[in-house]
Amino acid sequence: MVTATFERHFSGIFDPKSIAVVGASNVVGKWGFIMPVNALGGGYKGDFYMVNPKEKTVLGFPSYPNLSDVDKPVDLVIVAIPAAGVLGVIKEAAEKGIKNALVVSSNFSEVGEKGAALERELADFASEAGITIIGPNTMGVYSASSSLLAVGGPASPLPGAVGFISQSGNLGMQLLGWGRSRGLGFSRFVGSGNAANTDMHDYLTYLGEDPMTKVIALYIEGLRDGRRFLEVARSITPHKPVVVLKGGKGAQGGRAARSHSGALASNTELFDAMLDQAGIVQAENTEEFIDIVAAFDALPRALGKKVAIMTMGGGWGVVASDACDREGLELAKLPQSLIDELDPVLPAFWSRGNPVDLVGNLRRSSHFKVIDTLASCNDIDILIVMGALLGKDIFLDAVLMGTVKPFLGVMRNHLDHLPAFLASQLKGFKESFTKRKGYNPQGSAGINPGEAWQWTDAAMINMLEKLVREKQKPIITVALDAREMTAAASLQSRGIFSAPTPERAVRAASKIAAYGSYLEQVGDRNERAPV
Amino acid sequence: MVTATFERHFSGIFDPKSIAVVGASNVVGKWGFIMPVNALGGGYKGDFYMVNPKEKTVLGFPSYPNLSDVDKPVDLVIVAIPAAGVLGVIKEAAEKGIKNALVVSSNFSEVGEKGAALERELADFASEAGITIIGPNTMGVYSASSSLLAVGGPASPLPGAVGFISQSGNLGMQLLGWGRSRGLGFSRFVGSGNAANTDMHDYLTYLGEDPMTKVIALYIEGLRDGRRFLEVARSITPHKPVVVLKGGKGAQGGRAARSHSGALASNTELFDAMLDQAGIVQAENTEEFIDIVAAFDALPRALGKKVAIMTMGGGWGVVASDACDREGLELAKLPQSLIDELDPVLPAFWSRGNPVDLVGNLRRSSHFKVIDTLASCNDIDILIVMGALLGKDIFLDAVLMGTVKPFLGVMRNHLDHLPAFLASQLKGFKESFTKRKGYNPQGSAGINPGEAWQWTDAAMINMLEKLVREKQKPIITVALDAREMTAAASLQSRGIFSAPTPERAVRAASKIAAYGSYLEQVGDRNERAPV
Repeated sequence: MVTATFERHFSGIFDPKSIAVVGASNVVGKWGFIMPVNALGGGYKGDFYMVNPKEKTVLGFPSYPNLSDVDKPVDLVIVAIPAAGVLGVIKEAAEKGIKNALVVSSNFSEVGEKGAALERELADFASEAGITIIGPNTMGVYSASSSLLAVGGPASPLPGAVGFISQSGNLGMQLLGWGRSRGLGFSRFVGSGNAANTDMHDYLTYLGEDPMTKVIALYIEGLRDGRRFLEVARSITPHKPVVVLKGGKGAQGGRAARSHSGALASNTELFDAMLDQAGIVQAENTEEFIDIVAAFDALPRALGKKVAIMTMGGGWGVVASDACDREGLELAKLPQSLIDELDPVLPAFWSRGNPVDLVGNLRRSSHFKVIDTLASCNDIDILIVMGALLGKDIFLDAVLMGTVKPFLGVMRNHLDHLPAFLASQLKGFKESFTKRKGYNPQGSAGINPGEAWQWTDAAMINMLEKLVREKQKPIITVALDAREMTAAASLQSRGIFSAPTPERAVRAASKIAAYGSYLEQVGDRNERAPV
Repeated sequence: MVTATFERHFSGIFDPKSIAVVGASNVVGKWGFIMPVNALGGGYKGDFYMVNPKEKTVLGFPSYPNLSDVDKPVDLVIVAIPAAGVLGVIKEAAEKGIKNALVVSSNFSEVGEKGAALERELADFASEAGITIIGPNTMGVYSASSSLLAVGGPASPLPGAVGFISQSGNLGMQLLGWGRSRGLGFSRFVGSGNAANTDMHDYLTYLGEDPMTKVIALYIEGLRDGRRFLEVARSITPHKPVVVLKGGKGAQGGRAARSHSGALASNTELFDAMLDQAGIVQAENTEEFIDIVAAFDALPRALGKKVAIMTMGGGWGVVASDACDREGLELAKLPQSLIDELDPVLPAFWSRGNPVDLVGNLRRSSHFKVIDTLASCNDIDILIVMGALLGKDIFLDAVLMGTVKPFLGVMRNHLDHLPAFLASQLKGFKESFTKRKGYNPQGSAGINPGEAWQWTDAAMINMLEKLVREKQKPIITVALDAREMTAAASLQSRGIFSAPTPERAVRAASKIAAYGSYLEQVGDRNERAPV
């Protein structure tokens, strides 16, 4: 199939002032119901024109018998009627001068040759008329700038700066959800469906120029015009990262892709090499895809691949270092001046090496000092913080474990000790808080009550955010607990990427470093604003 | 260092009838406080003897001036005093005939040559006296059979069947938490610390024979006696899976491990080959470690590597198939009889291939039928289910999106349409429920209200559990949403492993398949009970 070229008006897709829904329905579960309902629920403020000859009103909006009966200008028409009628609607759209159609109807090329013929006819007519068709068989579109949530599933993406085009609607919708739980927001989303008269480079061209989009994320099963795609990508990657997840790379995956989106098998090695050369960042799997996109969304540019790791425990430092080995990142050698600066706040026997192991030191001011010192060091390009210890539940848990749980345990299993237990707990608490005034800063046991305020999530997050602003250096936190990960989601929009494991943090760091080195190579070091 | 060999009495560690705590303290945050407090909170029912010359009672229990003053039998002594005094305590323990000491005290070999000398002296004496020392510098021990939570951090492991030994206490503690959030329970945990007179094979020997332990998980930075370790492992793997995460494999990781646990660098390729030959399953990173351990904990044995995948969307099928390519798993060819059986419950245009794409079919009875049919097919060794759609929040969300959110959206942005919107929503709901009586089983739009009861998590989970019981075939569900993952945690103890991404499901499946093939090779196919 030859790629259609005609002037496109994507602003009508992502910022439509008015939408007509052909096949609009009051029947729960129908596409003609779900699409406008989601758009209304998402907060779309523009005008709606419902088209359904059998209804007087749909969802409270007057219903027109035909699209041509709508006597107002329409920027985007959503088509949700059986396949056979779609071409007729597009013809009406052409007459009305509508430039964009989102066709959710299925039973086109995905179901066989007869559907494919129908789709070709549709595509040819639309291209001739200068109409961009999203779909058919699309999951829909999201656009943050218009609060437009015209999608066929229960997604509630966060608004943000990632432009995401997916050749699988279902996968795309769920990744919007994965993003949400990480605090990752999206500027645009398109489930490209059968892509009757669009190819990936059409969307890419738009997103490259779109000021709302700072990172481009693409799930690709196949490209009709790979050469054009690479050409467009090459023009974008020097100023905006493009992250690709390629589905159907293996023999069995390729067969599945052919059956799903009709994508043709490609030479994987050649594909990888070409993407690499165009400065496109590739993810290996869905989890990594979201990790990397989130990393680019949050982090400033890396000026090199020297990593410093702060850790609360030796083992985590070891597995993170192993990951650096695998990913080709260098553990920065700590300069003596930095070691001297850290000496007073760390236990006497700290390793004086990188990873910087806090050896269980629970003095919160030490954590702050170590993070600040590492982030300020010019010999360090990327900082990975394991031990931000966010998530107030974690501390509530610790408190529970030290008070309520043992109380219950004594009550159940050692009842005769209960009165003495309570007395000695009370006495103990009192003593500990008194004794802690002369707390040894190099000691590692216990939390200094005088630093309680520093233990709030806000204190750590504000400190990290200030560092990012001042140092413009990638800082990655690792949340080693699901609750910590939830707390860390708020870091995303404040310029810090959080990973749920050290290895995933390092993997993302390696992609950030590789892209930094690509930028240096293409030589726009000074032109590019931080992502 | 030569590995100590003497008769060990691990039952005194994992099922002690009485525990003495030397250095027991009422001061919050001290190890001598945390250890007994956690043990009390964890529900330990045995006797406690507190030893602290300066206190009359500790945590409500009478305090003895010295260990030798305790006039009752002691199975395990927890030592939480400064390093210099530890040998003295162990000598007292020897006199009392105590066979096990958990030494949390630090400042031994981890801080330099002087500490190392102290530790050697301690180890030699203890070995001579037949005392097993856990530590020094250990994070502690958990044992489900005694509800013994003698650990130094806020862990609340679930009781279960995984025996876990970690050469990093911190990493170990947090992985117990990762396990908890996945519904994965542990029989035993030991943070082996400096391992003064134990080596990994000592623990392995015990866990191999331990009836409470069905899966063995080891985080290893170094082995003193690799040959013995492999020998022991070889005797265990034919009847119990052993999963290893090796820290310090890379050059930088190796340096970090040396600094952390003193582990010596090993030849990685040789190490991998030897583990492989001994039937040990290796994980590449921490996330995968827990995935694989959870998979072995839940799943029955795989009889081959032919996988069937059920998916709710084409893209997910594609990335899962790609993962099968990467991991060397085969997508099973569906026999015609199976296709014929599925035809009536799937949309007419379903691909009739594997992955079985439900193409968005939301008829719940179809999901049940597809899962049952695939699980019953003898040409399929492992079943991966993407689209169990667990997590009732997901449906509440869908309901919210269809009702409350659009209502609010209309109120805010299209106020003059509100009365008509409400009227048409009500009418629509009524109509849809009436119309759905003649619901087309092959259609894919919308949920059939008549199947509402089947949409509960319990209905799906019960069906899956029944299948596992009947078919003894590995079934893996993929939760494509954090809330679904939370719901899926309850599957773990019912014999179904759940992964948060298709790729991780496939990776775990590949390990299960590889171990199945190892079992076949070592020839005890009929002797081994399902894990």
